[in-house]
Amino acid sequence: MWPVVGIVGGGQLARMTYPAALELGVRLSVLAAHPDDSAAQVARDPVVADEKALDDLEAFAKACDVVTFDHEHVAQEHLRALEAAGVPLRPGSDALLYAQDKVEMRARLSALGIPCPSHRIVAGPGGVASFLREHGGQAVLKTARGGYDGKGVWLVDDVTPAEVVAEPFRAGVPVLAEERVAFRREVAAMVARSPHGQAVAYPVVESVQRDGVCAEVIAPAPEMPEERAVEAQRIALTVAAELDVVGILAVEMFETTEGDFLVNELAMRPHNSGHWTIDGAVTSQFENHLRAVLDLPLGEPQARAPYTVMVNILGGDLPEIYPAYRHVMARDPGVKVHWYGKSVRRGRKVGHVTAYGDDLESLRERAWHAAEYIRGDIDE
Amino acid sequence: MWPVVGIVGGGQLARMTYPAALELGVRLSVLAAHPDDSAAQVARDPVVADEKALDDLEAFAKACDVVTFDHEHVAQEHLRALEAAGVPLRPGSDALLYAQDKVEMRARLSALGIPCPSHRIVAGPGGVASFLREHGGQAVLKTARGGYDGKGVWLVDDVTPAEVVAEPFRAGVPVLAEERVAFRREVAAMVARSPHGQAVAYPVVESVQRDGVCAEVIAPAPEMPEERAVEAQRIALTVAAELDVVGILAVEMFETTEGDFLVNELAMRPHNSGHWTIDGAVTSQFENHLRAVLDLPLGEPQARAPYTVMVNILGGDLPEIYPAYRHVMARDPGVKVHWYGKSVRRGRKVGHVTAYGDDLESLRERAWHAAEYIRGDIDE
Repeated sequence: MWPVVGIVGGGQLARMTYPAALELGVRLSVLAAHPDDSAAQVARDPVVADEKALDDLEAFAKACDVVTFDHEHVAQEHLRALEAAGVPLRPGSDALLYAQDKVEMRARLSALGIPCPSHRIVAGPGGVASFLREHGGQAVLKTARGGYDGKGVWLVDDVTPAEVVAEPFRAGVPVLAEERVAFRREVAAMVARSPHGQAVAYPVVESVQRDGVCAEVIAPAPEMPEERAVEAQRIALTVAAELDVVGILAVEMFETTEGDFLVNELAMRPHNSGHWTIDGAVTSQFENHLRAVLDLPLGEPQARAPYTVMVNILGGDLPEIYPAYRHVMARDPGVKVHWYGKSVRRGRKVGHVTAYGDDLESLRERAWHAAEYIRGDIDE
Repeated sequence: MWPVVGIVGGGQLARMTYPAALELGVRLSVLAAHPDDSAAQVARDPVVADEKALDDLEAFAKACDVVTFDHEHVAQEHLRALEAAGVPLRPGSDALLYAQDKVEMRARLSALGIPCPSHRIVAGPGGVASFLREHGGQAVLKTARGGYDGKGVWLVDDVTPAEVVAEPFRAGVPVLAEERVAFRREVAAMVARSPHGQAVAYPVVESVQRDGVCAEVIAPAPEMPEERAVEAQRIALTVAAELDVVGILAVEMFETTEGDFLVNELAMRPHNSGHWTIDGAVTSQFENHLRAVLDLPLGEPQARAPYTVMVNILGGDLPEIYPAYRHVMARDPGVKVHWYGKSVRRGRKVGHVTAYGDDLESLRERAWHAAEYIRGDIDE
C-alpha cells in the first residue's frame, strides 16, 4: 500500500515537497486556498478549500493517510478536532503549539533548560518601559501568535515613540519582551525526526537576515568549531525529542559574541534555512520531511559539497523576470535557480538560487549576482 | 512570459521531467493515454488523449509554446502535419526520423562517416543467409521501425531455426541485418543541443545490458582514457549537429576490443543511460532537455561525484514492493530510490536506484543490493 500524504497549504514549501514525493513514489495531496497557489499550480488534482474551515480540513483528511503542513497557521482547535476524529497529524497539535505560540515556546524551552534570550510577558507600554530599564534600554517586542518573516516583531528602545510601543498590544494577544541579543551571527540547526524516534541532524548553517527576512544561507556555517556545531545540533535534537516533533524542525538561534547559542524561533516544517539541501545535501529537507511523516527510515543529511550557498530571490523592480533569468543561466551554467511560480511583488520571496563548491567567496558572489540581477538591482 | 512545454507521452521520462520543469518555473503539460500513466499521476491537469490521433495532437499543441516527446513513436505523418500547422516540435520531424527508422539512421550516419556496424537491408531469409556467410555466421536482425528495449531485435546464426529467421519479415517493414560486433562493452554518449546550436556533452557512461534491457549504468565509464571519451562525445555532438537534434540525444555505442566506437542506437529524448544525472550531475538530462527545447542557455553537465552508479529496478516476484522499499531505506540511507508509479509486472522498469561516491565497487554493490532486494531476488 503506497500512502497518500496530505499537505495543508499551497505555498512554496508544499511546492518543493512535490518533487520529493514524486521520486519517493508517494502521492502528495495539496490543500490550497486558490488553484493558482504555488504548489497547486504543479500538483495533480489540488484540493481547493478553506484551511480555516474545519469541515474542509476534515473532508481533505479523509482522503489522506497522514496530514502535514506547509505552515503553522492552522488553528489549534481545528488540529485538536482532527486528532479527536482519528486523523494522524504530523507534527501533532501538542508539538505545533510551540511553533504557533511564542509565549508557550519560551516557557517550555526555559523549563527544559534550553538557552533563550531573557524575556517576559509585558502587559502594556508600562511593562515595556520596565523591561527596557532592566535590559540596557533595548528590547524586541513579539506578539505571541501570528508573526513570521519580520511581521509581529518590533525593535524598541528608550526613544521609540509611544504609538509604536503601543502597536503590539492592539492585536489583543499576549506580548513578549525579549532582550536584544548582542549576537555575532544567526545560525540554524535543522533536524528530521520520525514518530518512532529516529532523528538526523543537518549541518548547522549561517543565516543572513535583511530587514527581518532570510536573505542568504551558508552551509555549513563558516568557522564554527566542530564541538560548537555539535552543541547546536544537540539543542535541536533535544527540542525535537522533548516536544515530540515529527518531520522537519528548524531551530533558529543567535550565536553570541561569546560563542553561545540562544534559541530565537522554531519552525516545524521545511524551512528557508534548509532550501540549500535540495542541491547541497544527500537527502533534501523535503524528502526527509516526507520520510519522517510516513515513519520511513530517514535519509542521510550530509552535505555533498564543502560549501553550499543559498540566496533568496525577492521581488524587485522587474515585473517580468524571464529575460533576466535567461541572462543568469547564460552567465553561470552552474548555479541552480528554483522558482516558486509566484507573481512578482516587491519584497516577496519568488525563488532562490543555489551555488555549491569549494570556494566560499566565489560561491557567494555567484549566488548573489544571480539573485540581484533577476531582482533588477544590478544590470550587468 | 513563462512558456508552456507540452510533452507527448505519459511514461517515466515525462514523469522525471516534471520536477525539472517545476524548479525551472516552466509549466509542463502532459499528454497521456490514461490518467494513471506514470507522468499523468503527478502532473497538474494531464491531457488524456490519443497520441495516434492527429486531432488530439493538434488540440494539445494549441495550448503549448513548444512540444516535445517522452518517446519516438508519434507517426511521421502527424509530426509533419503539426509542423505544417506551425507547431514548434523539438526535436523536429526531420531529426526524429533518424530515431524512428533504423534504415534511415544507418544510411545517414554512414553518409556522415560515423562508424557503424557493418549492415544492409535484407529482403528475406535468403538475404539473411548471404549476410551470415559474409559475417562469420552471426548477425543481428532489426526491423526498421517499432523496436525498443530488445523488441524488434533478433540474434541469429547458422543454426537458427527457419521460422525464427522469418519472424522479422512478418511486420512488413524493411529489415536490417547487422554484424555481431565483438565488443568489449556498451557505452553511451549523451549531449543536449538547443535550436541556436549550443550543445553540452555529459560524461560518457558504461551501460550494462541484461536480456536486451539496460540494467546498470556507470558514470563515467571506468578505465576509459580521456581521449577516447572525447572521441565518443565528438561523435554524439556531430550526430546532434548534423541531424539538427534539439533536446537530449543519447548515442548508444559498442566499444570494440580495439577501443573503437560503433554507433548502435540513437534516442532523441531523455534516456535510461542518463538517469544517473538526476543525482549525479550538476544539471540533469531532464532539466537540460527542457532548457534545450525552450532555447534557454544549457546547464553544466559535469558529474558531481567521482562515480555514480544507476541500477534499474525491474518488476520481479514481489507484487507489493513498499515493505522491501522500507527495508532498503533503513539498510542504506545514502542510496536514492526513484519510483515511476507503475504497477509491478515481471521485467517491467518500475524505478531505479542511484548511488554515488568514490569507491566504484562499493557503489555497485549498494545499488545492486537495493534493486535486487526490492525485486525480491534476494532476501537479506
